[in-house]
Amino acid sequence: MGKTIIEKILSSHSGQDCRANDIVVAQVDFVMGQDGTSPLAIRAFENMNGKELFDPDKVALVIDHSAPSPLEGVSALHKIMRQFAREKGCRLYDIGDGVCHQLIPESGQVGPGSLVIGADSHTCTYGALNAFSTGVGSTDLAGALISGKMWFKVPETVKFVCNGVLPAGVYAKDLILYLIGQVTADGCTYMAAEYTGEAISALSMEGRFTVANMAIEMGAKAGLMEADEKTFAWLRACTDREFTAVAADPDAAYHKVLQFDVSALEPQVAKPHRVDNVSPLSEVQGTTIHQAFIGTCTNGRLEDLRIAASILEGKKVHPDVRLIVAPASRKVYLDAMAEGVIQRLVAAGAAVVTPGCGPCVGTHNGVPSDGETVISTANRNFKGRMGNSNAEIYLASPATVAASALTGVITDPREFLK
Amino acid sequence: MGKTIIEKILSSHSGQDCRANDIVVAQVDFVMGQDGTSPLAIRAFENMNGKELFDPDKVALVIDHSAPSPLEGVSALHKIMRQFAREKGCRLYDIGDGVCHQLIPESGQVGPGSLVIGADSHTCTYGALNAFSTGVGSTDLAGALISGKMWFKVPETVKFVCNGVLPAGVYAKDLILYLIGQVTADGCTYMAAEYTGEAISALSMEGRFTVANMAIEMGAKAGLMEADEKTFAWLRACTDREFTAVAADPDAAYHKVLQFDVSALEPQVAKPHRVDNVSPLSEVQGTTIHQAFIGTCTNGRLEDLRIAASILEGKKVHPDVRLIVAPASRKVYLDAMAEGVIQRLVAAGAAVVTPGCGPCVGTHNGVPSDGETVISTANRNFKGRMGNSNAEIYLASPATVAASALTGVITDPREFLK
Repeated sequence: MGKTIIEKILSSHSGQDCRANDIVVAQVDFVMGQDGTSPLAIRAFENMNGKELFDPDKVALVIDHSAPSPLEGVSALHKIMRQFAREKGCRLYDIGDGVCHQLIPESGQVGPGSLVIGADSHTCTYGALNAFSTGVGSTDLAGALISGKMWFKVPETVKFVCNGVLPAGVYAKDLILYLIGQVTADGCTYMAAEYTGEAISALSMEGRFTVANMAIEMGAKAGLMEADEKTFAWLRACTDREFTAVAADPDAAYHKVLQFDVSALEPQVAKPHRVDNVSPLSEVQGTTIHQAFIGTCTNGRLEDLRIAASILEGKKVHPDVRLIVAPASRKVYLDAMAEGVIQRLVAAGAAVVTPGCGPCVGTHNGVPSDGETVISTANRNFKGRMGNSNAEIYLASPATVAASALTGVITDPREFLK
Repeated sequence: MGKTIIEKILSSHSGQDCRANDIVVAQVDFVMGQDGTSPLAIRAFENMNGKELFDPDKVALVIDHSAPSPLEGVSALHKIMRQFAREKGCRLYDIGDGVCHQLIPESGQVGPGSLVIGADSHTCTYGALNAFSTGVGSTDLAGALISGKMWFKVPETVKFVCNGVLPAGVYAKDLILYLIGQVTADGCTYMAAEYTGEAISALSMEGRFTVANMAIEMGAKAGLMEADEKTFAWLRACTDREFTAVAADPDAAYHKVLQFDVSALEPQVAKPHRVDNVSPLSEVQGTTIHQAFIGTCTNGRLEDLRIAASILEGKKVHPDVRLIVAPASRKVYLDAMAEGVIQRLVAAGAAVVTPGCGPCVGTHNGVPSDGETVISTANRNFKGRMGNSNAEIYLASPATVAASALTGVITDPREFLK
């Protein structure tokens, strides 16, 4: 019997011909922590009598959740990370560098067949690169920092076959929101999602990262895609390293195969306070918003900012709305300036914050007030997610967020694409 | 007997032929509050049974000290400001617009002969435009919002005559730090500083704002300059309003006239923890720094960013230093992007934060860690100013801060101008 993508990657990294539900110990290719999780991992590393990293070249710490630091206590945590990185010789991404899930792919450290763990739930993002990447806790991270290994129960795989062509004004974000709404937040618990079909092939790499990023919102351990020419072209721009595509065997065993046709998909939103509380945008059209946020590891990439700028260009954000924009990385910020995208956003009234996570996780840079409604390109809208449990968060595509920022109410972006 | 600039402005605004030490009630031309002070002023306004603003077109509230909001409690204060501005019909500058002391001059609301009060100590900045502007408390602000009036004891004036030409690599910031060091923090308590002489005339408007901004650091109520062709050219770019220059009479009475020759001035720094703890940079050259900050109402203008970018261009910030840059306003940010200045700073490793005050006042966006040393273009280095009382802050010019960010130690910027 053949293997799924994740069975192949876990087999190659464990030296064991494994199948779903086997327990394996696998070598990891790269290990990452951010500033919400690394300080705990560093303490655990010390408690485990950790001395050296298994391989400093395969470890990065990223200061992105509160960057630059808004509080003295946070600054102390950042200092612990900087000292650890200096002592142990691993890479540190400091304030201004961006969001971990953009930086690790940009660094060329992950590609087809890689196994990467990160102490952040959205580490599943790199599945867009045909890699198995997943989020772990701080203590697991500490163990991996020392050993370079991690145990896994090999996940079963759910195959999402997405046929058809996304209509104009409907994006990767709408697609993944729709899928999450269909399967619900626990629809893939501890499984791997394999996304495939012509609608996935047609996505840019940026769109693919968006889809892979939100696999965890269905409970999935990973959100995997096949590698194609787009994957390799994207990687060639980042690194000289060679990767070999990992394809599922035709006779691989799936827990389930789900078929979707996206040809008639409308823009989607996730309504408060659950990511799987998804409906077509039309159901909530006209809802008043106070803050709009474009950024995050889901939708803070160049293509996302470009789409938003194309809608906002020459117009002004509604006077009762704050529009916050966070480029996903220094490179995204520079590329977006080179194209005039940031300029158009700022001229329209956006407040651009330092590349990082801030508003998405409620640590700083845009905590809403009581009774306010936010529309955001992020991946989570849990009560209190943005730092205020008396605020409501809708999730949508960058186009929808930009259109809504202009009108002050939740707005179908197709109105601005005519 | 003739009059000083401030005697003339207070005479014209009080309808009283006043001289130093008289008590007058004056009409104000513009009233401003920021997010640290406005919420208290709004409460006082309500306690005074305030109904309407004396003139909504002459009032602005600016959200700059914590923008975008880092905390739920701060967001609640911002909401109070937004509601008040909407109800009363005054202008609100929201997150992303910038620092009040850049926005009010850019708005064309202040020019030669104006009388402006603001609930922020560095309101004295607009003295660079030949205006009397000064900081007031929140309760005084509330009274002025209702009445459009403010009482003053007419300040005596100290005249600073600055002769000579500043050497290359020595800037307005070095000049004002030097002057503060000479007269000390209480050297001009409740007096007006009149800055004059060829070294002042030679300054760009940006340099003049820097000098006027720090008048309060000598205890001065105001820091005034004459209006010249540069002043009017700067204003014409902002507004069609007409202003008439206010010059001191040749026989005006001064508390003191101080003469300085700036021709041999070296780069200056203010050492921890007092602004008047000034020495030539050479005395502290080589001191290790951890964070560098370019921005604020003192030095976050286009010229400042341009100088920093010219030093940083094509180089990289020292790996042990975080460089934070905050453009003073949306316009400064856009102009700096149009020139490629922001691009050069970001490429060199800077973390650009949203236009605003943040790091300077320790509210967010760059709170240092215990034991760290910061070099900053701000106007205050008091213990705890940046949010951590176990950090040390040196104040210097944008050139010095940029040079130090490159080397990791306090560095004479003239090394990079050869």
